[in-house]
Amino acid sequence: MLIHSASQLLTLAGGPQRGSELGRLGLIENGAVLIQDGKIVAVGESSDFKARYPDEETLDAAGRVVLPGFVDPHTHLLWAGDRAAEFEMRLQGKSYLEILAAGGGILSTVLATRAAPLNTLMDETRPRLQTMFEHGTTTAEAKTGYGLETETELRMLQALITLDAEHIMDLVLTFMGAHAIPPEYSDNSDSYTSKVCAEMLPAVKEWWQKQTSERGDVGLPFVDVFCETGAFDLAQSRRILETAASLGFPLKIHADEFDNLGGAVLAAELGAVSVDHLVATSAGDIAILGKSPTVAVALPCTPFGLAEKEYTPARDILEAGGLLAIATDLNPGTAWCESMQFAIALACRYMRLTPAEAIAAATINSAAAISRAHLVGSLEVGKQADMIILKVDDYRHLGYRFGSNLVERVIKKGVVYQV
Amino acid sequence: MLIHSASQLLTLAGGPQRGSELGRLGLIENGAVLIQDGKIVAVGESSDFKARYPDEETLDAAGRVVLPGFVDPHTHLLWAGDRAAEFEMRLQGKSYLEILAAGGGILSTVLATRAAPLNTLMDETRPRLQTMFEHGTTTAEAKTGYGLETETELRMLQALITLDAEHIMDLVLTFMGAHAIPPEYSDNSDSYTSKVCAEMLPAVKEWWQKQTSERGDVGLPFVDVFCETGAFDLAQSRRILETAASLGFPLKIHADEFDNLGGAVLAAELGAVSVDHLVATSAGDIAILGKSPTVAVALPCTPFGLAEKEYTPARDILEAGGLLAIATDLNPGTAWCESMQFAIALACRYMRLTPAEAIAAATINSAAAISRAHLVGSLEVGKQADMIILKVDDYRHLGYRFGSNLVERVIKKGVVYQV
Repeated sequence: MLIHSASQLLTLAGGPQRGSELGRLGLIENGAVLIQDGKIVAVGESSDFKARYPDEETLDAAGRVVLPGFVDPHTHLLWAGDRAAEFEMRLQGKSYLEILAAGGGILSTVLATRAAPLNTLMDETRPRLQTMFEHGTTTAEAKTGYGLETETELRMLQALITLDAEHIMDLVLTFMGAHAIPPEYSDNSDSYTSKVCAEMLPAVKEWWQKQTSERGDVGLPFVDVFCETGAFDLAQSRRILETAASLGFPLKIHADEFDNLGGAVLAAELGAVSVDHLVATSAGDIAILGKSPTVAVALPCTPFGLAEKEYTPARDILEAGGLLAIATDLNPGTAWCESMQFAIALACRYMRLTPAEAIAAATINSAAAISRAHLVGSLEVGKQADMIILKVDDYRHLGYRFGSNLVERVIKKGVVYQV
Repeated sequence: MLIHSASQLLTLAGGPQRGSELGRLGLIENGAVLIQDGKIVAVGESSDFKARYPDEETLDAAGRVVLPGFVDPHTHLLWAGDRAAEFEMRLQGKSYLEILAAGGGILSTVLATRAAPLNTLMDETRPRLQTMFEHGTTTAEAKTGYGLETETELRMLQALITLDAEHIMDLVLTFMGAHAIPPEYSDNSDSYTSKVCAEMLPAVKEWWQKQTSERGDVGLPFVDVFCETGAFDLAQSRRILETAASLGFPLKIHADEFDNLGGAVLAAELGAVSVDHLVATSAGDIAILGKSPTVAVALPCTPFGLAEKEYTPARDILEAGGLLAIATDLNPGTAWCESMQFAIALACRYMRLTPAEAIAAATINSAAAISRAHLVGSLEVGKQADMIILKVDDYRHLGYRFGSNLVERVIKKGVVYQV
């Protein structure tokens, strides 16, 4: 299939974009892309391509923007229940403790998720997957972490594997047994840390490898830890991540959402693929991160969801030479937002990215944040044919406009879906 | 037609909600509403209604929320061109003067609108109307004000009347020749003020009355003035509004978006139907407004669009007993946002409204802000059958969730549209 007549074809070619390189769109005016067997086989100008490939089935982009599908590299998209009552209590001025006493907070999602059978978990999650896809996300990371016990964590992995198989969008999985301290360990986070290391990580590896023999060659999922006051301290985070690394898991870490415990430096030291949140990150930590291969993933929907004033200091990270990506952080507590377009709109306003920078952070760099930059995130020969056609003729409308969906068609592995 | 089995039917019954009354949803569980000839003829519980009206065509709300269609009481939805380049320049740190020198700012929209034929204006605006409608807005105010000369202002009115006639959504019109000082009067705002009073207002009245004789009995449009530093000062605003009032026009005023020039007090003194923006409003002005019948219309998408930190002090307005509404302010410069759902999400976070308060501000109170509270904005017997069915079973998801459209069906004058 030949997609032609894109007013602007954004290729994002040339690999992940570090520091001041960010925003290199590889823009081709009147662009065209040729797709065969779900892959991109040529990228160029419409005038040449229509003559060169006269027998191809065509899709007229009709003067609209074509760009890679968004890669959302940080989501907690699988959960049961909702936290609308907690949101209302917060607005009424109720304190964190009052909300906890009323059954709110992350542990309410843990209880609902533990109680939910596999089918319920999948039924509640399917509309979110579909909403993400309709807003242009073609690959997303998805974490466990609302089980906090081996059985439920494995059920979450099972649900995610099943949803990945049934939905056209690709999911890249992360085990996050260390998302919070479960209620039964509230007085003994070290014991829970030991349990994660000694019981859960080996169990996940064994379970995953059994699945893999059925699914074909799929590498181990990421292992992620919430390194934060009230969750896992730096020593506990290090223990869990070092154990995971020794078992062969690739690493991620939630760091500096509220307090700086040193998680960003730990991520760089351990060669984590990404470090995510990065709001309270110090200048010294940013300098270290800027020299590391670890991708800095900003989650602007989260401070927005909480009506906080501080966002990831993106320009500082870029000045330090860092690799910056953005994600939705889709979750029921702080950011029920499926749309990477909205993450872009926030990144422009509160992290001072230009639309071009935010788009690169939401495609090729976010692919790098989940080790998929060789497969997706740009329109280059040999890559998966994952792309979106917008309703507009100028890419800067991403960022500029907000509150509606600018995606008209989503193309996943060469198959076209009308939104 | 009988719409039944709403998990929550929000009637918003009982008229506009002043001060601490705000948020009275009139919630009926397992609610039903009976529609005949485009009007509401009964509201109650599904169990009763299915027995009482067995022969009615039914629409099963299937455990979802049903509420009045949103009324968006402040938009500049008709314009030509876009300001994406200006948005990008702002993010790159360009100054206001650099942007003006590059042809940006409101006057760039004025030039594009003056140059646009009637059909171009309507073609560019239709997708915005449709997006508003699909996001649940069933009635919207729409202003002129990108002409700033009689001919183009009348063309804008003509376009709006035509769009109102062709689109199912209802438009309530406002003449805003005093939206900015046009370039040809940049050194002489008093002369332009005189022109608005002596030439434009009488011309609009004459033109409108000629239209009315063809359209049936439609009252005069609102007249609105931008009372702000760099636009019209307080004396000029007073002159225009007093002239408009003497000609029989109902009044609105843009006040205190950036500076407090006294526009809110002027609005109360002149009995304006609404005063809009209200960010830099003083405590004293809020006290006066709180005792007046003038509706305070907050426009949270505008500070969001500009990444500013200050929003309308909604809780102060409510404490003073004011009538508070919210609107999108849809416009190409500061807030290209068609979605009242997003205005609600912002109002919850940055104006500290609960979802119930924000919903009342976006329905019955916003109907009052355009003098339509007797026709729309609530589900009560005799009112227009304008309502929406959400995809969710709890109204608090409005506000809690953001970045996607929660509307499943829009019902306008009894006709059902699937989104």
